Amino acid sequence: MQNGLVISLDGMGGDHAPHVVVEGAHLARQKYPQATFLIFGDENKIKPLIKKYPGLESVVALRHTPDRITSEDKPSIALRNGRNSSMRLAIDAVAKGEAQCVVSAGNTGALMAMAKFVLKVLPGITRPAIATPLPTKVAGHGTVMLDLGANVECDPKNLLEFAILGGVFSREILKIKEPRIGILNIGSESMKGHEVVKGAAELLSTATHLPGKYIGFVEGDDIGSGTVDVVVTDGFTGNIVLKSIEGTAKLMASLVKQAFQGSWLMKLGFVLCLPGIIVALPAFIALRKRVDPRSYNGASFMGLKGLCIKSHGGTDGVGFANAISVAAEMVLIKFNEKVAQELESMGIGSVQSESSEETAA
Amino acid sequence: MQNGLVISLDGMGGDHAPHVVVEGAHLARQKYPQATFLIFGDENKIKPLIKKYPGLESVVALRHTPDRITSEDKPSIALRNGRNSSMRLAIDAVAKGEAQCVVSAGNTGALMAMAKFVLKVLPGITRPAIATPLPTKVAGHGTVMLDLGANVECDPKNLLEFAILGGVFSREILKIKEPRIGILNIGSESMKGHEVVKGAAELLSTATHLPGKYIGFVEGDDIGSGTVDVVVTDGFTGNIVLKSIEGTAKLMASLVKQAFQGSWLMKLGFVLCLPGIIVALPAFIALRKRVDPRSYNGASFMGLKGLCIKSHGGTDGVGFANAISVAAEMVLIKFNEKVAQELESMGIGSVQSESSEETAA
Repeated sequence: MQNGLVISLDGMGGDHAPHVVVEGAHLARQKYPQATFLIFGDENKIKPLIKKYPGLESVVALRHTPDRITSEDKPSIALRNGRNSSMRLAIDAVAKGEAQCVVSAGNTGALMAMAKFVLKVLPGITRPAIATPLPTKVAGHGTVMLDLGANVECDPKNLLEFAILGGVFSREILKIKEPRIGILNIGSESMKGHEVVKGAAELLSTATHLPGKYIGFVEGDDIGSGTVDVVVTDGFTGNIVLKSIEGTAKLMASLVKQAFQGSWLMKLGFVLCLPGIIVALPAFIALRKRVDPRSYNGASFMGLKGLCIKSHGGTDGVGFANAISVAAEMVLIKFNEKVAQELESMGIGSVQSESSEETAA
Repeated sequence: MQNGLVISLDGMGGDHAPHVVVEGAHLARQKYPQATFLIFGDENKIKPLIKKYPGLESVVALRHTPDRITSEDKPSIALRNGRNSSMRLAIDAVAKGEAQCVVSAGNTGALMAMAKFVLKVLPGITRPAIATPLPTKVAGHGTVMLDLGANVECDPKNLLEFAILGGVFSREILKIKEPRIGILNIGSESMKGHEVVKGAAELLSTATHLPGKYIGFVEGDDIGSGTVDVVVTDGFTGNIVLKSIEGTAKLMASLVKQAFQGSWLMKLGFVLCLPGIIVALPAFIALRKRVDPRSYNGASFMGLKGLCIKSHGGTDGVGFANAISVAAEMVLIKFNEKVAQELESMGIGSVQSESSEETAA
């Protein structure tokens, strides 16, 4: 098990559970043939779904539980009453060492509360963060942004820790040699912003052995421009910015659609365009794939002793498979060990042995 | 003058001054034939430009000054040393009652610092805010967001005041009967967010006579969805969100362009599409206009005793003319008097006489 790839899945989390979870496992298998899955949830619903995919049964262990966390459950209530929920048991499997990462499409607040409670924070890290890569203008390149909502208020030290976590992700998962790390602010000049970003700038500019290069303050329009690899911010700003980006992408798609629907000339134009669209289909498909939110599905909870990935609640099987891929990559590159090494080289606690012990415990 | 429409222009502010300023005045005249302009700046550069547009000379008074504020000037330095700058003199004209609104494409920080210093804050308002309408999915509808960067940190009372200012703008300028006012947060549930948004929610939900209807917390993706008319937030979040929205729009345009350029099939497809594109041209033009950033150019500095509009520094004549339109509309609907009436009806100071006196003084 130690060197295998066992992923624990919350079979009942998300809008379209359990079928997207099972389909996601099936699709992820094609990329990670060595992977096995522990699925927690309602046996009566999940078992027939597993049987639909040839060979899937052989790599899945199904653990029955009738309990589930709903999207309306408050984190505190979920934590208290959800001990037998599919979400909680899936996290417990990581804490027990039965799996190396958990993936859930369920309630984000409940997942973070449970993951923090069960898995605990990594030594040297004060608070965990939620992180995800976002598309940029540069092909094949993504910017990691964190925190996306785990911490409404942050201090400079939290932001420094986010920079380390995001830097390791960028370097190890996105394969960016020396990630450029920036702090999100309202201007690039050093006098801009509030005390927290100024304090974090001080810490980052004097830190040695950062997993990347601190490039100073960045602004909202730098996120998609490909000029920064790790964007560090508090969870309030990060969450609102992430949703604003998603909202803008949806708005633009909707405006184009409206234009096509709105006028009979445009409809005729569209028909006349069809031969051209058919000829150019491969490029259209490539573009669609590049902006497909499913390709970016799978936010990492970083800074915990065990790995936990949050899938978008409304995603489909392809999106859920992508969240499993993020989990698999983080396990395979030994994300937490890399973070522990970074922290040690920066002189933040002697953490390595403790953390690897806990992760494998 | 009292009932005329005199607009004061910073002739030297922005990347393409003075020519976009003069062109903007020329274009704005077509929409507001009653408007006259006071232009401040380098006579040698501006005079020949004015002569290029037939009839413009008759509605422009040019006031020479060689001084200008650059985009690199710090607000404090600009305030101290820029007393004869085109920006400062243009603002002074409003304070003196020679003009009813000032428009500048110059340095935002310097403009806000000078406008605050010269024009002063409206009685009943603690701090001015920067506001702009943003496009939404609903045709002909815009969402006003504020503050966009004047106040890095805010308290609940500031946010209440922003709601009033934004509500009046939405109702009077965007003609939305009962604007839906929301506070930007990381979730719609009442327990979400930090103390400032919770405190503001308390104030807004108990306020009577709001210029609109408080609908609670809204999220980043509500901004473009057309479900809220006034989005209230602190200047740190607002500025970053605005730039993230702009960045996302640019990113999407760039990805489409890359797709067209990237493959010869796509290029051939584009050529084959041409007849369709030509047939559908009017709809394409309408769409382009709807997402054209120039159509949204002109951010209002609200909550000051005089009106001040900030144009994007890199805009062209069409964009600058749009900023002048925002100025003209705010003058014509007597924005500050409307705000004073709202504040009075809410029992926040007896302000009306004082404010109208100051504005006209």
